[in-house]
Amino acid sequence: MAVQTVASTSNPTVDLGPAAALSCRECGHRVPLGPVFACEECFGPLEIAYDFSAYDTEELRRRIEAGPANIWRYAPLLPVPADVADKPNINPGWTKLVKADNLARELGVTGGLYVKDDSGNPTHSFKDRVVAQALEAARAFGFTTLSCSSTGNLAGAVGAAAARAGFRSCVFIPHDLEQGKVVMAAVYGGELVGIEGNYDDVNRFCSELIGDPAGEGWGFVNVNLRPYYAEGSKTLAYEICEQLGWRLPDQLVVPIASGSQLTKIDKGLQELIKLGLVEDRPYKIFGAQAEGCSPVSTAFKAGHDVVRPQKPNTIAKSLAIGNPADGPYVLDIARRTGGAVEDVTDEQVVDAIKLLARTEGIFAETAGGVTVGVTRKLIQDGVLDPTKTTVVLNTGDGLKTLDAVAGTGLTATIRPSLESFREAGLA
Amino acid sequence: MAVQTVASTSNPTVDLGPAAALSCRECGHRVPLGPVFACEECFGPLEIAYDFSAYDTEELRRRIEAGPANIWRYAPLLPVPADVADKPNINPGWTKLVKADNLARELGVTGGLYVKDDSGNPTHSFKDRVVAQALEAARAFGFTTLSCSSTGNLAGAVGAAAARAGFRSCVFIPHDLEQGKVVMAAVYGGELVGIEGNYDDVNRFCSELIGDPAGEGWGFVNVNLRPYYAEGSKTLAYEICEQLGWRLPDQLVVPIASGSQLTKIDKGLQELIKLGLVEDRPYKIFGAQAEGCSPVSTAFKAGHDVVRPQKPNTIAKSLAIGNPADGPYVLDIARRTGGAVEDVTDEQVVDAIKLLARTEGIFAETAGGVTVGVTRKLIQDGVLDPTKTTVVLNTGDGLKTLDAVAGTGLTATIRPSLESFREAGLA
Repeated sequence: MAVQTVASTSNPTVDLGPAAALSCRECGHRVPLGPVFACEECFGPLEIAYDFSAYDTEELRRRIEAGPANIWRYAPLLPVPADVADKPNINPGWTKLVKADNLARELGVTGGLYVKDDSGNPTHSFKDRVVAQALEAARAFGFTTLSCSSTGNLAGAVGAAAARAGFRSCVFIPHDLEQGKVVMAAVYGGELVGIEGNYDDVNRFCSELIGDPAGEGWGFVNVNLRPYYAEGSKTLAYEICEQLGWRLPDQLVVPIASGSQLTKIDKGLQELIKLGLVEDRPYKIFGAQAEGCSPVSTAFKAGHDVVRPQKPNTIAKSLAIGNPADGPYVLDIARRTGGAVEDVTDEQVVDAIKLLARTEGIFAETAGGVTVGVTRKLIQDGVLDPTKTTVVLNTGDGLKTLDAVAGTGLTATIRPSLESFREAGLA
Repeated sequence: MAVQTVASTSNPTVDLGPAAALSCRECGHRVPLGPVFACEECFGPLEIAYDFSAYDTEELRRRIEAGPANIWRYAPLLPVPADVADKPNINPGWTKLVKADNLARELGVTGGLYVKDDSGNPTHSFKDRVVAQALEAARAFGFTTLSCSSTGNLAGAVGAAAARAGFRSCVFIPHDLEQGKVVMAAVYGGELVGIEGNYDDVNRFCSELIGDPAGEGWGFVNVNLRPYYAEGSKTLAYEICEQLGWRLPDQLVVPIASGSQLTKIDKGLQELIKLGLVEDRPYKIFGAQAEGCSPVSTAFKAGHDVVRPQKPNTIAKSLAIGNPADGPYVLDIARRTGGAVEDVTDEQVVDAIKLLARTEGIFAETAGGVTVGVTRKLIQDGVLDPTKTTVVLNTGDGLKTLDAVAGTGLTATIRPSLESFREAGLA
């Protein structure tokens, strides 16, 4: 069954499996697979067009189920060669879909509540999924250096994946990043370059470097490899449906940074429907932001189609993109599926981190506090239906944002005696 | 096939699957399954005796392979009820066995080198395996509070598992623990009690509490539930062999804290052999310690059968048990299998953490630095055979011991310009 037909623009020298071409999301213009990210006709974003025409549904399902316990079980649906599982990579994915019965009781959800817990990835964030894809594209294009600009999770994911695959890595960060984050990124032994300036300066410099001979042979995972990189988020949709027994959830709550993850989850769900791997029935996608960086939520509530940039000011730093590239697409998906975009305060984020930890034993990054907090708010507001099957994403690990819950501490201090124990009311 | 026959001492009210009784490791005296840990006859340690007599090898293998992607796939070999996977628990295990080809090249290993990476567990250490077992025993015995003394990994594992399973938790720690560790343990919302004193004072207090009415209904995972808790480490042996294609590795390098993990890995391997799940052929187990806490290594090198306690002074705090309860059993296993026990300096631990990170993209806790460092030393000394299949354990996560590699940092700082980039020699 053909989801998208083969382009005449295919690049015969590059084997990225079912990926047939790059296609502009705005004007549909097609170009061969290569390290490009913007349409030469209209400057719209390029994304992968696939040829899935050869697949038989049940054979594909069996092939996936017999695959490895990582994202490569979905190799037939990703821009990677068929033998990808044999190549050195970080092999993320197939993280736990936790049935969150305690949290469901607290939130009044009766239709089944699940947490997709991506803290189980190799460097403990969903970024491993997208970097693993970018790495395969870099390999296919003959790049030897893996690079990115980052302020946190991405730096670690790139450093780790490059180390495993034998690539050189060169990660650019603001020079005044917290020491803990620097250590996490530096330990993998690649180049870690501090840029005198803020994150915007870092990004601007990277764009310059791509256009310069000095950047030749460099794969910037989230710039010139972005079309491949972004596809990694589709695996979240695949895993959730397979872990539910090849079934679409009714509702998903997804964090929004650039918005790319949410749009690719929608793309993944649509592919599963078109391929016949899940029954076609309605689902709603809800986007979650922190109030201190809520450009998409603000636009959604105002009924706008465009997103007005904001200056971020929130503890949810991994979501703090004030000018989200995929914002308009997120608005479109939330409206088309009957979902919504909502935001919560930093205080609500912290409360939600603690709520998830004390009910399910999952210690989430601030981004997980955002999704759980927004889920609670949407239920209270009657927007999210508690009688429906709902999946909430936790995309990172609490160990990386300890500061957010630094107020948490000892419940009592006692002398080492039973008398002191009883005095403290602990018996 | 019967590995151990059913005891007449079985407790008909407790369903812990194939667990038939508790048996003294020293004198063989048997008692019914219960929350006891020392032999009433000789004060020797009690361990689980199983009835595996009903198992057909190939049926058992199929049952395991069809099981969930966590330790409960081995439920038929563990002291848990058959329906354990349906009960709320933290569900650790089935962590990655990473083929470490880059590290192998650096160390000169040609026979296949693997890292069993337990940082992939829910709270990112192997402690989730043992706590998950203790939790099932606590449930079977009707306990409602899960407790432990801890200075780190165990506190988080107990807090998380208790939260998921709806138990009360009460964790005791020295009152002056580092703030980061307190936060990691406190976030799960249980009681976290600081004891005015050192870790020995905390332990002494816990022993007092078990004997007091105030401790009634309390399961101390590593005290009165210790026989059950300890069995969790067997799952490391099961997973390694299954992930190697139901094959014993030739050599294993295992960290030593109390020594319990190493003895239970040996027990697990022996069970697989007796059950016919792997071919019976020789394997060697090597124990790894930090020089600053190396009582077992010291005894091994001196040819002693007993272990003389030491006062720990090492950055590998999760291994810093100066008087390891299972030390003599470890010595016995290392000698019986033709292995060894070795130790490395803190400097070598840090080097090994960086080596593993830069070759395989795995950021290990100090305990992982100890095993990788010892592996390197044993190869250099001609003790470990580089032509044989070798598995090295990483039992924890580098994010929890960031201080150990705090010296790691930026490789360069530049202005956001290509000129500055070139000046720094990065082009």
